[in-house]
Amino acid sequence: MTGGYTLSELARRVDASVRGSGEVVIRGVNTVAAAAADQITWVSDAKYLSQLGQSRAGAVLVPEAFGDVPMPSLRAVSVERALSRLLSLFAPPVPRPEPGVHPSAVVAESAVLGRDVAVGPHVVIGEGAVIGDRSCLCAGVHVGADCRIGVDCVFWDQAVIRERCEIGDRVILHPHVVIGSDGFGYYFADGKHNKIPHGGRVVVGDDVEIGAGSTLDRSKVGETVVGVGTKIDNLVQVGHNVKIGAHCIVVAHCGIGGSTVLGDGVVLGGQVGLRDNITLGDGVVVSACSCVSRDVAPGKMLGGIPAYDHGQYLRVQTVMHRLPDLVRQVKELAKRVQNLESADDKPTRGA
Amino acid sequence: MTGGYTLSELARRVDASVRGSGEVVIRGVNTVAAAAADQITWVSDAKYLSQLGQSRAGAVLVPEAFGDVPMPSLRAVSVERALSRLLSLFAPPVPRPEPGVHPSAVVAESAVLGRDVAVGPHVVIGEGAVIGDRSCLCAGVHVGADCRIGVDCVFWDQAVIRERCEIGDRVILHPHVVIGSDGFGYYFADGKHNKIPHGGRVVVGDDVEIGAGSTLDRSKVGETVVGVGTKIDNLVQVGHNVKIGAHCIVVAHCGIGGSTVLGDGVVLGGQVGLRDNITLGDGVVVSACSCVSRDVAPGKMLGGIPAYDHGQYLRVQTVMHRLPDLVRQVKELAKRVQNLESADDKPTRGA
Amino acid sequence: MTGGYTLSELARRVDASVRGSGEVVIRGVNTVAAAAADQITWVSDAKYLSQLGQSRAGAVLVPEAFGDVPMPSLRAVSVERALSRLLSLFAPPVPRPEPGVHPSAVVAESAVLGRDVAVGPHVVIGEGAVIGDRSCLCAGVHVGADCRIGVDCVFWDQAVIRERCEIGDRVILHPHVVIGSDGFGYYFADGKHNKIPHGGRVVVGDDVEIGAGSTLDRSKVGETVVGVGTKIDNLVQVGHNVKIGAHCIVVAHCGIGGSTVLGDGVVLGGQVGLRDNITLGDGVVVSACSCVSRDVAPGKMLGGIPAYDHGQYLRVQTVMHRLPDLVRQVKELAKRVQNLESADDKPTRGA
Repeated sequence: MTGGYTLSELARRVDASVRGSGEVVIRGVNTVAAAAADQITWVSDAKYLSQLGQSRAGAVLVPEAFGDVPMPSLRAVSVERALSRLLSLFAPPVPRPEPGVHPSAVVAESAVLGRDVAVGPHVVIGEGAVIGDRSCLCAGVHVGADCRIGVDCVFWDQAVIRERCEIGDRVILHPHVVIGSDGFGYYFADGKHNKIPHGGRVVVGDDVEIGAGSTLDRSKVGETVVGVGTKIDNLVQVGHNVKIGAHCIVVAHCGIGGSTVLGDGVVLGGQVGLRDNITLGDGVVVSACSCVSRDVAPGKMLGGIPAYDHGQYLRVQTVMHRLPDLVRQVKELAKRVQNLESADDKPTRGA
Repeated sequence: MTGGYTLSELARRVDASVRGSGEVVIRGVNTVAAAAADQITWVSDAKYLSQLGQSRAGAVLVPEAFGDVPMPSLRAVSVERALSRLLSLFAPPVPRPEPGVHPSAVVAESAVLGRDVAVGPHVVIGEGAVIGDRSCLCAGVHVGADCRIGVDCVFWDQAVIRERCEIGDRVILHPHVVIGSDGFGYYFADGKHNKIPHGGRVVVGDDVEIGAGSTLDRSKVGETVVGVGTKIDNLVQVGHNVKIGAHCIVVAHCGIGGSTVLGDGVVLGGQVGLRDNITLGDGVVVSACSCVSRDVAPGKMLGGIPAYDHGQYLRVQTVMHRLPDLVRQVKELAKRVQNLESADDKPTRGA
Repeated sequence: MTGGYTLSELARRVDASVRGSGEVVIRGVNTVAAAAADQITWVSDAKYLSQLGQSRAGAVLVPEAFGDVPMPSLRAVSVERALSRLLSLFAPPVPRPEPGVHPSAVVAESAVLGRDVAVGPHVVIGEGAVIGDRSCLCAGVHVGADCRIGVDCVFWDQAVIRERCEIGDRVILHPHVVIGSDGFGYYFADGKHNKIPHGGRVVVGDDVEIGAGSTLDRSKVGETVVGVGTKIDNLVQVGHNVKIGAHCIVVAHCGIGGSTVLGDGVVLGGQVGLRDNITLGDGVVVSACSCVSRDVAPGKMLGGIPAYDHGQYLRVQTVMHRLPDLVRQVKELAKRVQNLESADDKPTRGA
């Protein structure tokens, strides 16, 4: 990184073309406002192009179709992909435990660690757990008995996975994730809530990423499931026996009620609540701060509490703040209609 | 479990009666869709009875009043209670630390551990803390100085209880629960927010269960209280000096503002917010995603932001999405009334 | 504390004046309802004054302007400030790790600890981290490589700060805070969500306090920032590249979307959601359970989902529950107008 790359070299590495001088040397990526002369910045939306005039950036990454810009540029079909590669090239190394077992870790004798597994300080691994090759358990991670963890996983500090859960390959858990806590289920009898045993487990597919502090409960029987490639943000709650499909996006603070089913490619905005025992079809999109209380057909976009068609929701939002005016108008109309009715009456009476 | 039980034997153990053959051998519980021929499933709502036709389950648990079903059945007065007992019979064992103190734990000399207390790896127990008989502190649990913990508790991994808090008997804390963090209280002076000391504590009653990642703040003076038998789900925030009554249900992501008081048997749906300094009477029910901003009389059911009578709330929801139509109708009515008024005027003027 | 203070002595220490006997001995602070004869209570709002009649408190702290009260009183210009000082005088000591490094801690050789730094049990400090004088890392805290931590900080149990983050002086982190987890950013290509590297960091200013379980994500490039003196409550999510100004208040369960900017002195009520890429000016106030989806000018007060002017929001709330009535009224009006129109028609036709 210290040596940097010429813009031409970068173009080759991120699959882009150069406009302007390819000789400028780039040593990092930064925002339009903060980039220095040896850094490259990026603009993917034309409305921000004007800000480039004040930028000190040595180069800029833009979509192929953009016109001239005030500095040398990289042109890419997908700015996001090229940016992601640039960020990878320049990102500082991420310090993680080295392969091997830290002496402060507590690893059960019957646990099986694959090749080059890294077990950090104060990690705890239960009896019969299996950890796949090259997976990394950072400091304070707890893996319960009989868990099966795939290869190339990274579990950040103090993630907790309780017994018998199954995690796929290349899964990333951020700090303080909890997987496999008991579901919230009781029956009321004898004047109190009686705990229902939750002897199921949680199964997390390959390439899933789960954000800091999120919690995924285990089911009574069977499995709580997170599908392949799904990305869950911070502080999300996933109830017992929930099935989340593949390649979903679940933004921070969402709560998904027990036994609810999400198809593939579902997107939940921040702070969305889904009640228990409903089904959202493939590709459903729910806008932030909404609450879904019934089944939703595939491909629908929803908003509101409770949620309904998103287009209609937007129209409602547009007029919502005028509700007091509407009340006044109706009151006034009622008076005028009353007057008209009286006027109609009078001639009759006068006749 | 491997041997299984005959259906007749199960009937005896879960207080149910048998219809059909009592000789079928059952080795587990599973859902209607997933149950195998040596498993029992359950149906508590008649609308799901039709699904039994496709089930491979060897037996089914249903309410006493149900009619014939396609396989041998257990009949119970309370399906929930019988199901809970079935689940207990077949649930795999839950691995937890054995009684004794793990060598990696750090236990203060003045701490007092009861009989058969289990202290897992990396647990920390502060000076003067008292842990009741048979309580189990799983890996990474921290119990602060002078805490008093009852008997038969289970604190799952990395739960943190700060100093001087008091926890009753048979309390379950799930991973990453925080009890006794400072309340959120400041006074503004000299151009900044000044921290108000929170020297109080948290008192949790017997048979309480608190979900993963939930946080309960300590008070300035006196106590934050959770009543006997109350069940709190994951990622719930309980503010300083809150008093929660007995046998309440608080679903995930609820936030309860400082000094607010809940009576007994209150139910809060998911993501409910309660402002500070209000009182909810016994048996109040608040539907999910609502926000309560004033006192609520006992027994009321509420919904909305801010919350009001639940029946009225449902009626409002029913018409809410038609608000743009209503605006159009009123506009059109105004025009028609205007026309009528003009028509009325004309003859007068014409006269 | 055992000896207590006379009311006159307390007056001197908290900058207040005495009315009534200054000789009464005070040994603690408590609420109006719970205070004993050797405790002082407080009333800052005149509407609660009547409750003093039933209080057993030996003295009461009130604003200077209040009239007579049933017991000796302290009179202060700012009750909050005086109360805060009283609480400090009487608060029990808060047990924390002593200066020095606990033998179970894992501290990298290249880490630099200032004078009188306290490192509790099972703490982990990464390579190159610098911890300022007198800072205290309670049990299970993890500080990543190359972090810089200021002086006089208190990080409560199991707070996690990932690599290269920077924390100011006198910062308080409550249990299970996560600082520097990866931002939630992907680009969709080849049928899946591809992770965008987050090589930035989090910078937390002096005198910040962050509540239990809150999570602050690191940015792609540059910094996620929390300004000087800002106070963040429990279970709050701060997205990648967010900039929070100085002296803000962020109540529990708020979620702030990526790259959103808050000015100084912003106040967010509980469970507020802010979408990504918006700006809230200095002094903006958002009421609880609201969702802000666009830029907000300085000094504005907002409410609603999505949020708009708070005064208007309150007016809308006032009429919201009457919406079904309004629908009925409009329907009825339409019928009456129809009748009037028919009546108008008839004479014409009759003519």
